[in-house]
Amino acid sequence: MRVGILTGGGDCPGLNAVIRAVVRKGVQEYGYDFTGFRDGWRGPLDGHTVPLGIPAVRGILPRGGTILGSSRTNPLNQENGIRRIKDNLTALGVDALVTIGGEDTLGVATRLTDEYGIPCVGVPKTIDNDLSATDYTFGFDTAVGIATEAIDRLHTTAESHMRVLVVEVMGRHAGWIALHSGLAGGANVILIPEQPFDVDRVCDWVTSRFRASYAPIVVVAEGAVPRDGDMVLKDASLDSFGHVRLSGVGEWLAKQIEKRTGKEARTTVLGHVQRGGTPSAFDRWLATRFGLHAIDCVRDGDFGTMVALSGTDIVRVPIADATARLKTVDPALYEEAGVFFG
Amino acid sequence: MRVGILTGGGDCPGLNAVIRAVVRKGVQEYGYDFTGFRDGWRGPLDGHTVPLGIPAVRGILPRGGTILGSSRTNPLNQENGIRRIKDNLTALGVDALVTIGGEDTLGVATRLTDEYGIPCVGVPKTIDNDLSATDYTFGFDTAVGIATEAIDRLHTTAESHMRVLVVEVMGRHAGWIALHSGLAGGANVILIPEQPFDVDRVCDWVTSRFRASYAPIVVVAEGAVPRDGDMVLKDASLDSFGHVRLSGVGEWLAKQIEKRTGKEARTTVLGHVQRGGTPSAFDRWLATRFGLHAIDCVRDGDFGTMVALSGTDIVRVPIADATARLKTVDPALYEEAGVFFG
Amino acid sequence: MRVGILTGGGDCPGLNAVIRAVVRKGVQEYGYDFTGFRDGWRGPLDGHTVPLGIPAVRGILPRGGTILGSSRTNPLNQENGIRRIKDNLTALGVDALVTIGGEDTLGVATRLTDEYGIPCVGVPKTIDNDLSATDYTFGFDTAVGIATEAIDRLHTTAESHMRVLVVEVMGRHAGWIALHSGLAGGANVILIPEQPFDVDRVCDWVTSRFRASYAPIVVVAEGAVPRDGDMVLKDASLDSFGHVRLSGVGEWLAKQIEKRTGKEARTTVLGHVQRGGTPSAFDRWLATRFGLHAIDCVRDGDFGTMVALSGTDIVRVPIADATARLKTVDPALYEEAGVFFG
Amino acid sequence: MRVGILTGGGDCPGLNAVIRAVVRKGVQEYGYDFTGFRDGWRGPLDGHTVPLGIPAVRGILPRGGTILGSSRTNPLNQENGIRRIKDNLTALGVDALVTIGGEDTLGVATRLTDEYGIPCVGVPKTIDNDLSATDYTFGFDTAVGIATEAIDRLHTTAESHMRVLVVEVMGRHAGWIALHSGLAGGANVILIPEQPFDVDRVCDWVTSRFRASYAPIVVVAEGAVPRDGDMVLKDASLDSFGHVRLSGVGEWLAKQIEKRTGKEARTTVLGHVQRGGTPSAFDRWLATRFGLHAIDCVRDGDFGTMVALSGTDIVRVPIADATARLKTVDPALYEEAGVFFG
Repeated sequence: MRVGILTGGGDCPGLNAVIRAVVRKGVQEYGYDFTGFRDGWRGPLDGHTVPLGIPAVRGILPRGGTILGSSRTNPLNQENGIRRIKDNLTALGVDALVTIGGEDTLGVATRLTDEYGIPCVGVPKTIDNDLSATDYTFGFDTAVGIATEAIDRLHTTAESHMRVLVVEVMGRHAGWIALHSGLAGGANVILIPEQPFDVDRVCDWVTSRFRASYAPIVVVAEGAVPRDGDMVLKDASLDSFGHVRLSGVGEWLAKQIEKRTGKEARTTVLGHVQRGGTPSAFDRWLATRFGLHAIDCVRDGDFGTMVALSGTDIVRVPIADATARLKTVDPALYEEAGVFFG
Repeated sequence: MRVGILTGGGDCPGLNAVIRAVVRKGVQEYGYDFTGFRDGWRGPLDGHTVPLGIPAVRGILPRGGTILGSSRTNPLNQENGIRRIKDNLTALGVDALVTIGGEDTLGVATRLTDEYGIPCVGVPKTIDNDLSATDYTFGFDTAVGIATEAIDRLHTTAESHMRVLVVEVMGRHAGWIALHSGLAGGANVILIPEQPFDVDRVCDWVTSRFRASYAPIVVVAEGAVPRDGDMVLKDASLDSFGHVRLSGVGEWLAKQIEKRTGKEARTTVLGHVQRGGTPSAFDRWLATRFGLHAIDCVRDGDFGTMVALSGTDIVRVPIADATARLKTVDPALYEEAGVFFG
Repeated sequence: MRVGILTGGGDCPGLNAVIRAVVRKGVQEYGYDFTGFRDGWRGPLDGHTVPLGIPAVRGILPRGGTILGSSRTNPLNQENGIRRIKDNLTALGVDALVTIGGEDTLGVATRLTDEYGIPCVGVPKTIDNDLSATDYTFGFDTAVGIATEAIDRLHTTAESHMRVLVVEVMGRHAGWIALHSGLAGGANVILIPEQPFDVDRVCDWVTSRFRASYAPIVVVAEGAVPRDGDMVLKDASLDSFGHVRLSGVGEWLAKQIEKRTGKEARTTVLGHVQRGGTPSAFDRWLATRFGLHAIDCVRDGDFGTMVALSGTDIVRVPIADATARLKTVDPALYEEAGVFFG
Repeated sequence: MRVGILTGGGDCPGLNAVIRAVVRKGVQEYGYDFTGFRDGWRGPLDGHTVPLGIPAVRGILPRGGTILGSSRTNPLNQENGIRRIKDNLTALGVDALVTIGGEDTLGVATRLTDEYGIPCVGVPKTIDNDLSATDYTFGFDTAVGIATEAIDRLHTTAESHMRVLVVEVMGRHAGWIALHSGLAGGANVILIPEQPFDVDRVCDWVTSRFRASYAPIVVVAEGAVPRDGDMVLKDASLDSFGHVRLSGVGEWLAKQIEKRTGKEARTTVLGHVQRGGTPSAFDRWLATRFGLHAIDCVRDGDFGTMVALSGTDIVRVPIADATARLKTVDPALYEEAGVFFG
């Protein structure tokens, strides 16, 4: 049995931990061989591989990123994409694929399995935690930890100058990072893509915080948008989902706050530091367990399946369940956090 | 409505986050007053209180420990304990108690509610994660993170000198910290209280790791014990549970490994650093949500109840369910980790 | 003897450590009283004070920011500024001032001492490390540590996607943070304000790094500017020093790199997180020692003096020496780092 | 020109940064070849080498430990040690050695250069910072940072239970780590090997701290000893320097404090975590600059010389100056810290 592995989409702390676990268990317990594919789906498309055995995975557990490289290449959009993958897998003697990625990568995996008979197992990965059918994806806890530490630091700057600090965190379509890091960091306002915000209400919270002689921290997901239609027309655009997007929402919001409250406001855009570097202990544990269970799916011939976290258990779900719809923040959960606003 | 709060047992990162959330929501949403009791059950026993309102809980979210102090005092063992508590609550006008603690503190809370009509709500707390009826307790993630970072550091020392490094982590009766930090830290051997270990097998793993030209890290829970009866007779004792205990198991094991393998071995006992300091983002989030739901239990008159984590939801369970039996590591889970041994 | 303390300019990790040390030693060893002035020079201007004794400084050592608040108010620009300060100090019975700040704050202190007979002692503070007459200022080591950790994280993202990552760090007029964090983080290009850069040369380094199958990290100080005159005319402006400034140099450079090398480039602007939060151990040690020696200057009547680090010793220098000229990066030091470029 | 490199003595964060800088500059600027020797002096004794070029040093900057391995082997104690080294160097064509180590490793290097004509350059390394002729050694800042973070965590545990927490840190003969981490961590007592301590005075400080309603942290260097002769006779021994040593001084002291003050006391021995893992930014910077200057010494034929830090400059000193006597804590410096005791 020869198993291929690939990692697709944006990089994410924990990818290497999955690869290591898949290979360690596959080699030691089941005697499998492994082929690493470079740069997501581009690897099987172009037959671009790297050797993958136990020596290759030693020491990679704590390392961020992915030793296999990544890309956003979608074979379904490539000329003869499916055919090229099939030919390459046959030529390389690869019997099954472990595909580690988000919505796009897994969307391809489920179609390859169901429609083209290429046996794939999925491992869910996204910093944003917006994949359905799993309690958490690895990388998310690391991102939340980094954002929370940044918010901790910004509190002291805000207090020293009695300024508003706006922190823009990742999250285009779902506000999980904003919600968790905002709660953990003691933010005074949290804004998420799921709930268009009212700038005046944000300003009320800001003002109320200053009245208590403290300086406010506003955490805003990059995909959050204001409710006011007129503003949007001037400053925003539509993204590929047809959603209104406001590029640089943090900067935009800081200016609005300054204008309306007369208080100084500064913006910090955390950006790529949220997705790089060593994974948190939680993410290493989750990624490792995902890897161990993914190779069991291969052994059981359980393809089209994705490993998922349910409570403290790793379970198997149809990949299609995970990609069917985005997992967004429940309004009740957001409302629960509102007690800390202002 | 006046609500008392107390924190009992060993300190744990996240206690202050619970207190803050209970008070913020209680005051802002329900208009409650609060009384802080000092040093666990000693507070209501002696009528020792501190004022507790929104100003008192500002800024405490990221701080470890507990602003209320803690103790292991058990009112059921005190002369007229119940009577003194009742009198003090009456005198102070306290209508209900939010009790934050582990097995012992919550065991008292359930009896006070059920047998003596003192309305208590429980919030589960233990570094060790060994309380039933909840997926996790706060403090555990922080402890695992600290232990994992220490293991990361010890790897480089082990490699540089090609030595065995034994790391003793917390966990008297349950191996959760050892299992999670061992997996996350890439340990080569993990030993837990639930599974008496065979020193010869440990030495086999150690030797096998050296054969691969790497140096081994052995993570051992403080409550782990060797399987061999003769050794135990000489070196160990019985604890209050009637379990065999080996004080200083890390040091003991390092000596055994040196004797049997001829390799140098060193021990690090992480100790109290695992339970102090700022909570991880996960623990702040969990503790905050526990606090928000605990005060809802008070509002609903739902006493004898404990808040618990189930997947990503906060649920309510009878306190008695949590304290009925220790949550130990499932043998299957331990076996799963075994692929990384050696 | 009653001593006033104020903190001016941008906040900086270690300010509280200085305040604590001044007060602890002043009260315990010399029996002094203390008056805290709010918000830099605005405090003595407006007579805005806070009580400052040993209880007020307990627990502040590890906290970022300043318990006294800060501002950029310059009393020399205020109507009757000097008179108001003198009157307030007299009214409050304040005999001497410990002034903690950067070039501006200390510039005022030296003039108050020399020209107006208001006895001031200076403590140098700047994230940017660009004050002369001291080896280091506190806050700098913390900022370098935060920037280095961010660069560590960005390496894995760069490698996974084989992208250029441009990191913009603090440093308007001096490249110390860029140089130290770039060296410590293993950057492939470091650009500082002292040395206008050649975009083509930057692109050569970037390309050379990719040829070695690695992805480049470019660290650029916010005040760095390109050498090419034409570009500057379009994109830049003059700052108050008459220096050419390019707002958003990181973003600008990433676009240039993309255009000229055809490689994807992304920018991260670290911003305020570099100056907030708990100080590093080095900064706590330096700030504490500065405080202990500053109060000794007061005791010795050694005014117009600033404490400074020289090797491992705390020494005294005229404040005017520190503010006479900016301490910039020596060309030889920058050249030394060049071995790692590309 | 072929240059050999070895690392001797205990591992230390920053060793890899030195190796990388030596090789990068040596290859790129001077066109040298390099030979890595395994395990300190054992490498040249046994002719045990590893290839060392630019690919071998990529990515090692942030990694703790040493890719060359280390040992405490002293060739002067080995049969025909000098002869074997000379023969191996000749056979391998090695023209000069860069030796990175502490007192022992450098002591050998100076004798090999001066007495046996083997051209060596020294790079000072010790966690303990007790080498003369340099302001700091790399590894020290990392160790102080780790100890300070641990002390931060222990404060919250101490406060929650109103217990004494004794922290034993590294430092057999010099108290630098204890002094710096104690000052940075806000310890209430700091005990160093240079100053035998009076247990009753320690207990006075402990009691005084409790009177202020705070819990004390006692930082004790592993080599600190009590002043009382009688205790020493029972509990201590003589080390190879003829100094009195008390194995487990932290544990011993905690027991004494409990006995004499009636307060609970707990001990944490930080141990090996202080010397492993990724170096701090300061140590990476210092180690890198040491490496760059060490290879310049080779180029200049400046042997028997050690690179050293003087203020912010890297200078050259005779190796013999560094090893002539231990750099211990100046009594005035220790006394300066005393204002924070109690």
